[in-house]
Amino acid sequence: MSTYMATTNTGDAKVCLLGLPYDSTTSYRPGARFGPEHIRSASYGIETFDPIVDMDLEDLNILDLGDLELGPGDPKRVIAQIESYAGALFESGKRVLSIGGEHLLSYPLIKSVSKAMGQDSLKVIQIDAHADLRTEYLGEQYSHATVMRHVVELVGYDNIRQVGIRSGTRDEWQLMRGNGTYLPLDSNTVNAIKEWAGNSPIYLTLDLDVLDPSVLPGTGAPEPGGVSYRELEDLLVGLFGLNIVAGDVMELAPILDTSGVSAVVAAKVVRTLLFLLSVLT
Amino acid sequence: MSTYMATTNTGDAKVCLLGLPYDSTTSYRPGARFGPEHIRSASYGIETFDPIVDMDLEDLNILDLGDLELGPGDPKRVIAQIESYAGALFESGKRVLSIGGEHLLSYPLIKSVSKAMGQDSLKVIQIDAHADLRTEYLGEQYSHATVMRHVVELVGYDNIRQVGIRSGTRDEWQLMRGNGTYLPLDSNTVNAIKEWAGNSPIYLTLDLDVLDPSVLPGTGAPEPGGVSYRELEDLLVGLFGLNIVAGDVMELAPILDTSGVSAVVAAKVVRTLLFLLSVLT
Amino acid sequence: MSTYMATTNTGDAKVCLLGLPYDSTTSYRPGARFGPEHIRSASYGIETFDPIVDMDLEDLNILDLGDLELGPGDPKRVIAQIESYAGALFESGKRVLSIGGEHLLSYPLIKSVSKAMGQDSLKVIQIDAHADLRTEYLGEQYSHATVMRHVVELVGYDNIRQVGIRSGTRDEWQLMRGNGTYLPLDSNTVNAIKEWAGNSPIYLTLDLDVLDPSVLPGTGAPEPGGVSYRELEDLLVGLFGLNIVAGDVMELAPILDTSGVSAVVAAKVVRTLLFLLSVLT
Amino acid sequence: MSTYMATTNTGDAKVCLLGLPYDSTTSYRPGARFGPEHIRSASYGIETFDPIVDMDLEDLNILDLGDLELGPGDPKRVIAQIESYAGALFESGKRVLSIGGEHLLSYPLIKSVSKAMGQDSLKVIQIDAHADLRTEYLGEQYSHATVMRHVVELVGYDNIRQVGIRSGTRDEWQLMRGNGTYLPLDSNTVNAIKEWAGNSPIYLTLDLDVLDPSVLPGTGAPEPGGVSYRELEDLLVGLFGLNIVAGDVMELAPILDTSGVSAVVAAKVVRTLLFLLSVLT
Amino acid sequence: MSTYMATTNTGDAKVCLLGLPYDSTTSYRPGARFGPEHIRSASYGIETFDPIVDMDLEDLNILDLGDLELGPGDPKRVIAQIESYAGALFESGKRVLSIGGEHLLSYPLIKSVSKAMGQDSLKVIQIDAHADLRTEYLGEQYSHATVMRHVVELVGYDNIRQVGIRSGTRDEWQLMRGNGTYLPLDSNTVNAIKEWAGNSPIYLTLDLDVLDPSVLPGTGAPEPGGVSYRELEDLLVGLFGLNIVAGDVMELAPILDTSGVSAVVAAKVVRTLLFLLSVLT
Amino acid sequence: MSTYMATTNTGDAKVCLLGLPYDSTTSYRPGARFGPEHIRSASYGIETFDPIVDMDLEDLNILDLGDLELGPGDPKRVIAQIESYAGALFESGKRVLSIGGEHLLSYPLIKSVSKAMGQDSLKVIQIDAHADLRTEYLGEQYSHATVMRHVVELVGYDNIRQVGIRSGTRDEWQLMRGNGTYLPLDSNTVNAIKEWAGNSPIYLTLDLDVLDPSVLPGTGAPEPGGVSYRELEDLLVGLFGLNIVAGDVMELAPILDTSGVSAVVAAKVVRTLLFLLSVLT
Repeated sequence: MSTYMATTNTGDAKVCLLGLPYDSTTSYRPGARFGPEHIRSASYGIETFDPIVDMDLEDLNILDLGDLELGPGDPKRVIAQIESYAGALFESGKRVLSIGGEHLLSYPLIKSVSKAMGQDSLKVIQIDAHADLRTEYLGEQYSHATVMRHVVELVGYDNIRQVGIRSGTRDEWQLMRGNGTYLPLDSNTVNAIKEWAGNSPIYLTLDLDVLDPSVLPGTGAPEPGGVSYRELEDLLVGLFGLNIVAGDVMELAPILDTSGVSAVVAAKVVRTLLFLLSVLT
Repeated sequence: MSTYMATTNTGDAKVCLLGLPYDSTTSYRPGARFGPEHIRSASYGIETFDPIVDMDLEDLNILDLGDLELGPGDPKRVIAQIESYAGALFESGKRVLSIGGEHLLSYPLIKSVSKAMGQDSLKVIQIDAHADLRTEYLGEQYSHATVMRHVVELVGYDNIRQVGIRSGTRDEWQLMRGNGTYLPLDSNTVNAIKEWAGNSPIYLTLDLDVLDPSVLPGTGAPEPGGVSYRELEDLLVGLFGLNIVAGDVMELAPILDTSGVSAVVAAKVVRTLLFLLSVLT
Repeated sequence: MSTYMATTNTGDAKVCLLGLPYDSTTSYRPGARFGPEHIRSASYGIETFDPIVDMDLEDLNILDLGDLELGPGDPKRVIAQIESYAGALFESGKRVLSIGGEHLLSYPLIKSVSKAMGQDSLKVIQIDAHADLRTEYLGEQYSHATVMRHVVELVGYDNIRQVGIRSGTRDEWQLMRGNGTYLPLDSNTVNAIKEWAGNSPIYLTLDLDVLDPSVLPGTGAPEPGGVSYRELEDLLVGLFGLNIVAGDVMELAPILDTSGVSAVVAAKVVRTLLFLLSVLT
Repeated sequence: MSTYMATTNTGDAKVCLLGLPYDSTTSYRPGARFGPEHIRSASYGIETFDPIVDMDLEDLNILDLGDLELGPGDPKRVIAQIESYAGALFESGKRVLSIGGEHLLSYPLIKSVSKAMGQDSLKVIQIDAHADLRTEYLGEQYSHATVMRHVVELVGYDNIRQVGIRSGTRDEWQLMRGNGTYLPLDSNTVNAIKEWAGNSPIYLTLDLDVLDPSVLPGTGAPEPGGVSYRELEDLLVGLFGLNIVAGDVMELAPILDTSGVSAVVAAKVVRTLLFLLSVLT
Repeated sequence: MSTYMATTNTGDAKVCLLGLPYDSTTSYRPGARFGPEHIRSASYGIETFDPIVDMDLEDLNILDLGDLELGPGDPKRVIAQIESYAGALFESGKRVLSIGGEHLLSYPLIKSVSKAMGQDSLKVIQIDAHADLRTEYLGEQYSHATVMRHVVELVGYDNIRQVGIRSGTRDEWQLMRGNGTYLPLDSNTVNAIKEWAGNSPIYLTLDLDVLDPSVLPGTGAPEPGGVSYRELEDLLVGLFGLNIVAGDVMELAPILDTSGVSAVVAAKVVRTLLFLLSVLT
Repeated sequence: MSTYMATTNTGDAKVCLLGLPYDSTTSYRPGARFGPEHIRSASYGIETFDPIVDMDLEDLNILDLGDLELGPGDPKRVIAQIESYAGALFESGKRVLSIGGEHLLSYPLIKSVSKAMGQDSLKVIQIDAHADLRTEYLGEQYSHATVMRHVVELVGYDNIRQVGIRSGTRDEWQLMRGNGTYLPLDSNTVNAIKEWAGNSPIYLTLDLDVLDPSVLPGTGAPEPGGVSYRELEDLLVGLFGLNIVAGDVMELAPILDTSGVSAVVAAKVVRTLLFLLSVLT
């Protein structure tokens, strides 16, 4: 069904891919619900081998679980549905890479992992253009713009680092800077993360809008001034060696980019994260 | 702000235009939230004069209320918000044409009108491709696919007529046929409606996907085999003389049609409905 | 360079094709300047043989003159440029089919033909969605919206028939109906035109927006409720036998239709008009 | 994987769906290779129930075989590959609906069916805009423009009827008219086909470009003047009762239509043909 | 109406936003007339707070004047119209940020400011891909390609600096280099500008095509090899402290970029310039 | 016909431009057949003068040969056709810049040049995202993915350098690294190439997908992480002085990028290569 499943999966695959097609709280431009389908389709356009990390998907054992059937509408219902499904996966020791879908869905995923891990030990790396630290947005408490605030309640500011952020309210910037979660993206970023992370289990949440809109125009809230593909790749390759137990790649809204390039970019990012999740297995 | 407000509005305008930018329960392709903005913008491309009904927007007194600020997410919150705002308008005797936005939003509108009118007297004409008579859809009770079921609870099957329907489940078709709400669109339709309607106050809800997707590709659930623009125009012109007290034009998802034509079609339909609402004032 | 020049042109070709890439007075959506280039390109997608009129471009002698270099900006300068160039062609007895480009350019073309023919004898058939009878539009006297008013000054209302019109101001409709230029498009149209035209030399100006926007979305001022391709084809085929000495196909704005279909439709209409201009040669 | 497989397939499904993603001989605009993927994806946007034929996909037993892996390039290699694969299916008594992909691929399909049926009895109905009767096209003997000429060699002109054709060379029109294969599409078409077909086994090949480009812009060789969706639907519904043993739906090039509507139209046509193939099972 | 008007405007706002929807001399790809509308619409997708300059639109008093109604056609008429309207604004001491619209319109703006300031003191910074120093272009003296030549006549070469230029005729390059107006964009640019500018009143004209086409594809004359968003941002932030009295952001042609990203980029550039114009108020 | 032919061509032009509209072995996204047409059309949007190399097309004598008529389908037929046509050009001493069209077509071009030069002396520089060193791809021996393997057979690994490669199978990377053909793109690349090349005649093949997909989304196999326009320009300008006798610019698939920017980028790259081929003449 996708390049990511190049090998015949045996039931004992440790790394799983899970699609989460939901975008009902997207405030600006919807379409992330089509992310999982287009990432899988675009994966046919890239190789299974990655010369930078020298790994090949064909040598791995990855299970594509397909998409959860998430109806549109009330976010609370959907959060509960994901928490239940993903919880069982994490409890059974799977490493899951989720592909979205809107960023709000990272909340039930992180909650499930956190619970499976023992709450106090999980750390969260957020790679994103937006702080997502609001308490409420346009009348909704559960929204892509509030997701990290809910995560703060789960793991605390000390266990969060936010990389690539370039947009937020004055309040959000004060929160990030006051609590030390904000990390500029430069030549020190990888080292700073490694020092902070140690051997802790890590959840890596990647909102694709961290990339410059020229690289990935197909996303709901494009924010000019983002990172290039190579900058993101360097960052991710730098994280090899960390104990990343789960992650997500969110906010591809493929129908907004008729050239199809955004989906290809997302598919290649997903390939890197599958290697990242597999390398310690 | 749009062609529809060609005259200087005085506070005593009887006919109002109201935008409802919300699409969070859209199940297939989102984007109807951008409908109101694009309808107003496209209105600049058409004339204020209509040679068929021989009326000119410049001779009327229409008040464009702008858009309600409806955050994305939980449909119940949005339903309550519309019910409250529209209720006040209807109580004060305004005739409101709402532009969407997804079809679910017709429910709080009809509920408000019905309440203002005295519930037992309101009749509802639905022009649509889909029956929208489900009790639940993809886990959501309040959804564009269930909107008419909620309306049934408000006014009963006898006070509903459904025109242009060409898609539904087997259950929905049995409901339509069993309760006599289904009207084929042919040379008898206008007469059948007039006979059924009499002088009752009428709410006219128009889901733009009744049009063939060739005419209006920019909609969330395009259904091949629809009516042409002229067929729709003939139907609407045939309804002049009925006591239409409120209405809506829903489900334009303009970003799905990069040619911009869908928005122009919607803008012209809105023009016709503004005349229809104004003619008895 | 295009399908229309299937034969090696000898200098004595009677029928010529001329591109007019200009759209600076377009009021709503520009892009007609790219019409000629895309019509030629799209002509590769259709056959040279037409089974309805039983003619083949390969049997004809048509000279493609390429495009006039018309800079953007002041319409008066461009009008003078076309009048000069086309005038020489018409004086030398050529039958020219011009492809636009915006509708204003029909004015210098008709003026040139009229002069070459002797002014009182030329008749003009306008196939269009818009009346184009304004005296001024958005501050410009020379505009696509005023072109027929200028033509009226050249040949008078009696020598004009307007077919397919469905949009105009109240004033324009009164002019059309009062002066008898308006012809509805039905089963009598062809006969009415033939009776009126007799053997007079005729200029046929065809604004492609007469077609329904579903058929040709790539145009500057799409007007819902237009004719189908077959209806237009029937009308044009009905005109075979008239003494059509020149014509134009205007207002293709191909970049507005990324599917490319609008250009194909225009290319096929051009094919029909080339046959129409060639049949009496 | 698609709406078409609503039921759990048992191994004894009689009707199969097969994707053929190949378009290397497409002469004008490529992209039909993406047809099968987009048809399956768009099928989620339509219901499983069809009120006109009163059938529901959920009541049937259809097996979606997925796509054949057809590399791009040499058409002879691909023809052999399909002939081998489809031949085995037909020999085992399956009724196969193939979805393309370019029209050339109908040739190995018809050859396989013909062989399985016993060659002299198979009849072929072609619904198409183009005659496809050339002997060679742009240097290729095996091409979408020559496919029916190869079919003629298999079954002879007497066993072919061509409906909806509106484009061809003068030679092709002489072949169609001289051999009586051409059928105009009017109120007599269904009866004429039924009389000619009798109880013979029939292969139904449907090139989606028979539809007007306004209905289905996403195709390689759009030809203005085509049929509406309703006209095609009426024709297909009229064929219920014939002994149709296999068929195909070809030439959807979905990337040419960014509105996505072409794929939805194709998906609904496929639904009708699945009913048509299932009704006699 | 847009994010830029976050506060309730009092009549004494010093900084104004003015839309100039005109593009009739655009020589390559038109559409800049839709720039103002799309910039306002896209402003909803970005925050009011800018973490780099630490300013928030909500703390400012900016008046959005809407768009001037500029008909298409003759550029001389439009120049006069802007000169008259903007002149009055500048005379009353307003700081105006104009959003286009084509680059020619900078000419009447600069002329008006220059007049209000006293002609000899005004300096002009042009950030652009093209030199725009022609004396005539495609027959038009007043054109986007000649705009800076007219500005030279107003303020002289000494009072002009041109940054980011990468395209021009050999003559234009000789003019730029010979007169010292050309400044390469590197780490010295800001200092060079500051030294040259001193405390003089400055008009800042920004043609968005200075950005690389990957960053802003929606413009009339995309020129490969441009600056990234961050490079432009660094340049603009470097100019804080200069006495910038008026400016413009020109040449967004949003319909050429269906992803909508170009409009978002333009909206963020406009946000920066509003801060730049407000900081000295 | 294009900007590239600014001067009246005399028969003795040494540098020729040749279009090769073929893409039948494209495995992912077709459309490169439209490359030549769109490159010529987009060339109108750029200047004839290049300030970096200080050359003007108007001072050169370049002959645009138009496009070879290459039907779609069997690649072997097309290879033979190009070999025959290009062979005659190279034998007569012309320097040809070919514009594609898919990358496979570089094979017959290199074969022809190699033959004309004397096989052992020709060196080949490949600028590309993909290694293209497979022996077979999806069943086809002659494919865009195998083209360099065929070139290896012609000139040997020692005479090939591959720049910009970032995608390939593990086998292909071993071939590149084992045979020393792979050159990273950094500040040493130009010197490394010059040292290796010496005065040998060189064929420069440029697959446009070496550019990052943000710069050129309109290509069949976009590969994230590519070079910027300026990086490519620096590389190409660095090659001035080498004895480049022929070259190509391949894999523009313009219909995949509705913004038109990809074609403009390709047109500017072609301009640079025309200067590169002309400078030694």
